[in-house]
Amino acid sequence: MSKKHNFGAGPCILPQEVFEEASKAVLNFNGLSILEISHRSPEFVAVMSEAQDLVKEMLHVPDGYSVIFLQGGASLGFLITAMNMSGTQKKAAYVNTGVWSNKAIKEGKNAGLEVVEIASSKDQNFNYVPKGYNADGYDFLHLTSNNTIFGTQMKSFPQTDSPLVCDMSSDIFSRTINIADFDIIYAGAQKNLGPAGTALYIVKESILGQSTHAGIPTYLDLKTHHDKDSMFNTPPVFSIYVSMLNLLHLKKNGGVSEMEKRNQAKADLLYNEIDSNPFFEGTAAIEDRSNMNVTFVLKDEAHAVAFNQAWNAAGIVGLKGHRSVGGFRASMYNALEIDSVKVLTQVMGDLANQNA
Amino acid sequence: MSKKHNFGAGPCILPQEVFEEASKAVLNFNGLSILEISHRSPEFVAVMSEAQDLVKEMLHVPDGYSVIFLQGGASLGFLITAMNMSGTQKKAAYVNTGVWSNKAIKEGKNAGLEVVEIASSKDQNFNYVPKGYNADGYDFLHLTSNNTIFGTQMKSFPQTDSPLVCDMSSDIFSRTINIADFDIIYAGAQKNLGPAGTALYIVKESILGQSTHAGIPTYLDLKTHHDKDSMFNTPPVFSIYVSMLNLLHLKKNGGVSEMEKRNQAKADLLYNEIDSNPFFEGTAAIEDRSNMNVTFVLKDEAHAVAFNQAWNAAGIVGLKGHRSVGGFRASMYNALEIDSVKVLTQVMGDLANQNA
Repeated sequence: MSKKHNFGAGPCILPQEVFEEASKAVLNFNGLSILEISHRSPEFVAVMSEAQDLVKEMLHVPDGYSVIFLQGGASLGFLITAMNMSGTQKKAAYVNTGVWSNKAIKEGKNAGLEVVEIASSKDQNFNYVPKGYNADGYDFLHLTSNNTIFGTQMKSFPQTDSPLVCDMSSDIFSRTINIADFDIIYAGAQKNLGPAGTALYIVKESILGQSTHAGIPTYLDLKTHHDKDSMFNTPPVFSIYVSMLNLLHLKKNGGVSEMEKRNQAKADLLYNEIDSNPFFEGTAAIEDRSNMNVTFVLKDEAHAVAFNQAWNAAGIVGLKGHRSVGGFRASMYNALEIDSVKVLTQVMGDLANQNA
Repeated sequence: MSKKHNFGAGPCILPQEVFEEASKAVLNFNGLSILEISHRSPEFVAVMSEAQDLVKEMLHVPDGYSVIFLQGGASLGFLITAMNMSGTQKKAAYVNTGVWSNKAIKEGKNAGLEVVEIASSKDQNFNYVPKGYNADGYDFLHLTSNNTIFGTQMKSFPQTDSPLVCDMSSDIFSRTINIADFDIIYAGAQKNLGPAGTALYIVKESILGQSTHAGIPTYLDLKTHHDKDSMFNTPPVFSIYVSMLNLLHLKKNGGVSEMEKRNQAKADLLYNEIDSNPFFEGTAAIEDRSNMNVTFVLKDEAHAVAFNQAWNAAGIVGLKGHRSVGGFRASMYNALEIDSVKVLTQVMGDLANQNA
């Protein structure tokens, strides 16, 4: 088959080597299929341990943090983080940067918290990241580091005395971050970590067991999973195995700092095309543009049919914008090669040239 | 490699054809890896729909029931079912048949219910299934149909006016059941349905949205997932895909009634060996013996080394009993061939003959 350029927003492209290794393990992993081994077997316990160690190594996780793999995605994480971070005030601040923040806010309320929406970019359909707010004095401040739908990304994180909780589903492992700034980082796996089916939590151990939420259910208590080393119940074996393979691949390819450079180069290439090509324009505020999800529109919708035909013919998939904003979205996660971006910019350039 | 006979308790053996098809899809599923496709793509929407339809067909699910795929295993299901079935009394009956029932009871309490342990086999270390209790008049009666650890199975279900909720993780699809008897059936996938990473719920639609639990969190509300057709958030794509493949295989091989016959034949073969071999004895009450998980011990531990060597040499894996009961456990899920059981009974017979 011809090569596909997968710009999908997630579940998304992973390295070809990872697919090949995973495919083999479905047939034979130490004599059995990876799908039929016990999660208590020494072989899988080693996989889980290696995945956790690689997360720590790749993100320079300091001592005093626990790395946990769960299920339920960030959508269950909205609830889990709110329950686990419930403090003496039962009052939390949330920055509203779009769809995912809104869902987090809803579950904060469902967890029994008084939720203060301390800043929002709703006034501009979430095309920027709010700044300059004071979030001191809350049980925690909740952030969404990157917005897949609106194409914005926090380039820095606020200074505050409130503990930081951050949903990094769509940009974790894409850039260097200082873990020590956060009490909880959580992320659905299906962007830069692995396939759908698991979610990563990086948790300051000192918060475990400190929640003021009454009767916190066992599965929703991060202390449960820390104490049982992510083996409280049957974990999503295959998703964690493939995540481990992907983290190994990341390590072999220079780690997060190298990915950050590559991602910057890909973003520069595509944003430069958008800004210099008279047929297109970007939708996010320039200083807040995401390096993961590039959102843009045609200035004249009359060219939509021709453009869609051209990128389809070039083997590009997943370029359609989210249904809530329209236009186009090029998601450029770690595994997307810059050559795929060059194919896209070529198609964009050709459209302008052919219609000049 | 030589053939392995996988008697593991779960995640467990699945058909070889399913492994082969799944392995291929990791490399190429309509031109992309199954691990990198969007869950909103027409290709995956079709997979989800087919998986749901096959569940309905294989279990003869009547109209008025919803088939939902979630995450979190039965361990999150303990909480979800209690929250969703909270009724006007906020009082539920649970039958305690061991480890899994105990966990369900704990989450019933965490869901804010008054839990009545209406029957228990704790007095005999859970080696039988309690019967003859009156469970009328509760918000629901919670059952665990099969006990992987103690090797017991409910051969019939109680008659009561309380709605039935049943954790069927370890025997769903192994025998015919009458879905209409239950308000909720739930099951972690990793026995007869598919690989770890998804959980199945079969829910009477009339209970959706009727919970009296205040502020039920979005992910924990079955109505959320019914309304969004199991696509509220990113589902565990690969686990659901492989479950669909396994259900297709089940259909091609005669469906649940055929599996029931095969499972009965396997169980008859092994229990007959246990009962006729002077070196072994079963641990569960005869009338409650599980056809899925056969628990047995050596009458004289002095033969343990020889027996362990012999079954290991025969290519058998996963025969060790659960750490809480010791001895041996032969799990014989749908995909385990009767030839594997014959290998085991041969090894057991040889032990007796060689030491006669």
